[in-house]
Amino acid sequence: MLVLGIDPGLTRCGVGVVTGRPGGSCSLVAVEVVRTPSDADLPDRLLALDRRLGELVAEHAPDAVAVERVFSQHNTQTVIGTAQASAVAVLAGARAGLPVTTYTPSEAKAAITGSGTADKAQVTAMVTRLLRLADPPRPADAADALALAICHIWRGSAKARLAAAAGGGARSGRGWGGRR
Amino acid sequence: MLVLGIDPGLTRCGVGVVTGRPGGSCSLVAVEVVRTPSDADLPDRLLALDRRLGELVAEHAPDAVAVERVFSQHNTQTVIGTAQASAVAVLAGARAGLPVTTYTPSEAKAAITGSGTADKAQVTAMVTRLLRLADPPRPADAADALALAICHIWRGSAKARLAAAAGGGARSGRGWGGRR
Repeated sequence: MLVLGIDPGLTRCGVGVVTGRPGGSCSLVAVEVVRTPSDADLPDRLLALDRRLGELVAEHAPDAVAVERVFSQHNTQTVIGTAQASAVAVLAGARAGLPVTTYTPSEAKAAITGSGTADKAQVTAMVTRLLRLADPPRPADAADALALAICHIWRGSAKARLAAAAGGGARSGRGWGGRR
Repeated sequence: MLVLGIDPGLTRCGVGVVTGRPGGSCSLVAVEVVRTPSDADLPDRLLALDRRLGELVAEHAPDAVAVERVFSQHNTQTVIGTAQASAVAVLAGARAGLPVTTYTPSEAKAAITGSGTADKAQVTAMVTRLLRLADPPRPADAADALALAICHIWRGSAKARLAAAAGGGARSGRGWGGRR
């Protein structure tokens, strides 16, 4: 299963592509931080992010997209930009006909470290270990995106096994109408 | 000048298309409220909104798109959905290669009623009068979208006259690379 994880942000948007199997190990396919200049106009920033995410989805053709869910406890000024970037991220997957799942930061942290309150250093350390990387992914947005992808492979796999046991299909994602 | 105004929202997104000239009167071309069910998944809602806004932009081929700017003083839970819808709205214009301008609610109210603190009834009354409508547009999201379009025609016109007087071109919008 190939999953593209996105840690949304207007200034820095982490993208991590990971492949892995249910109960098996995971491997890094690609990692990138998409940046847009903070002094650029909003339409320019959203369009640049939309184009790059669209390219990455087309290039890697993942089975699913996992996006960090935006939370209201963030600073309200920051949350607007993060929410706008998350909409672009979700659309990048949905437009391509892929199932898109959102995870809270706590869900991703718990999946990777066993604790929903793990700090950034712990998440980075576990991502580095789980993907057997020589160096920790930097910046934190890159590690967070990889953590989301690993989280989805593990949690999605559990859901798929449950669905199979219940007599359902192996793929729980929504079917979209395909690329527009 | 044909302007498509958008009052972004996930549950109700107002869209108003208005034509008008600098210093002249404005006329209604179309008005619609795009709705997505509040119990649907986020990817479904964003994709449905994206598709309908894309259709409306293609159908009306406006000269510009005006979108209400999201404000941090809103309720933080509501502001996330509004910010996500606003990203879809801005992208709908930007992807089509159109200049997209955002206006605060106060700017739109001031342009239409003379007061940045006008209430919804006053905005609706002025939109009805300025567009010479038999009945007030309902719901308020429809009136707000029309107010944004009128605001842009009047303010954009003023900017264009200033640019022309300064020896610049009549169109101040950014040039995009066209539809993807």
